Amino acid sequence: MKNKSQIFRLLNYKNLLKQLKALGFKKVFSDNISDTLEISSSLVRKDFGTFGITGNRKGGYDIETVLNKIDDILGKDEVQRVIVVGVGRIGQALMHYNGFSNEGIEIIAGFDTDSNRIDEKAEIPVYSIDKLSDYVHNNKIQIAIMSVPKLAAKHTVEILEQCGIGGVLNFTSMKFKSHDEMTINNIDIVNELENLIYQVNNREEIQDNNQN
Amino acid sequence: MKNKSQIFRLLNYKNLLKQLKALGFKKVFSDNISDTLEISSSLVRKDFGTFGITGNRKGGYDIETVLNKIDDILGKDEVQRVIVVGVGRIGQALMHYNGFSNEGIEIIAGFDTDSNRIDEKAEIPVYSIDKLSDYVHNNKIQIAIMSVPKLAAKHTVEILEQCGIGGVLNFTSMKFKSHDEMTINNIDIVNELENLIYQVNNREEIQDNNQN
Repeated sequence: MKNKSQIFRLLNYKNLLKQLKALGFKKVFSDNISDTLEISSSLVRKDFGTFGITGNRKGGYDIETVLNKIDDILGKDEVQRVIVVGVGRIGQALMHYNGFSNEGIEIIAGFDTDSNRIDEKAEIPVYSIDKLSDYVHNNKIQIAIMSVPKLAAKHTVEILEQCGIGGVLNFTSMKFKSHDEMTINNIDIVNELENLIYQVNNREEIQDNNQN
Repeated sequence: MKNKSQIFRLLNYKNLLKQLKALGFKKVFSDNISDTLEISSSLVRKDFGTFGITGNRKGGYDIETVLNKIDDILGKDEVQRVIVVGVGRIGQALMHYNGFSNEGIEIIAGFDTDSNRIDEKAEIPVYSIDKLSDYVHNNKIQIAIMSVPKLAAKHTVEILEQCGIGGVLNFTSMKFKSHDEMTINNIDIVNELENLIYQVNNREEIQDNNQN
């Protein structure tokens, strides 16, 4: 019984544990994790319990064991192939983002309507959007990053639905809802920045029930 | 009494209402808003009430009035000047992102350690990180977008703290906690994509208590 926030915490645990491992840590206590991630330590223990990760009160959790277990749960063995739809500045940056490969994510192609951006011979090729449907079917693609202009967002989501894409990471400021056939996660950069500005300008006034 | 999630909802309301306005809508009901944003309509009414926004059961809320009120609350009259620290691909894309100006946000400079990226004559100049402190003081900058490599993240946050930056939008996959003097909001693109992949691969299994 895994819900979305639990999975997100699991990814946060993984991220943190990898950082600790890089620092030479072997063991970690739920209290350390909860302090860093600003959640309760009982929630950490509950999550770990749900996923069958065990530790002990005295010695804490073995980082390597927990990381392997999380990778098992997240199914990290298979490389996940992802396409980018809309290769303007943000899309291009995401296509070449070097943080993905460490996590077994490979960006294998981009798509755009602008013929100036199309380059089928590039290391990561960029195709015309007309070729999207065939490409998705032939390569069994499930996941797309969407970084088109806001005005093109709705039409693009419809195209992705028709192609059978199952998950979209949406970088436009147009919000979309997930449904049974498609999961859409929205990252609204403008919204995030506005939110930050507001928090900073009203720091004294804000009761920070921070839920990060 | 405004907390972080409330502000975030307020920004979501604004975003949605602007979209509706662009479609020619004049009025909106709390039920429409709650359906679209997947929150309860009583929460929408409560938020609006807290901020002194009134409507009526029959006629709904006047979109223009609500938008003006939200802009008052968010203090949108002043242009917010923001710097970008780390102008690799993602940083460059963010420097030139065209969604900011509509929201009264202006990216006025970039900073980097790589001399190849420094260009003080560019439309949006890129300076050496050595000039950051003076620049921030002279221009009274409060907000920075951080898009440096993960390994440089911790040191960069320290520099930003020393300069008196009050808010950081952190695009590295290294998480940081806010404290009294500095608000740090983390956008972890890799984490978001991993989360999406996991959800798609385990759609049947996941009980989607979606909290977006």
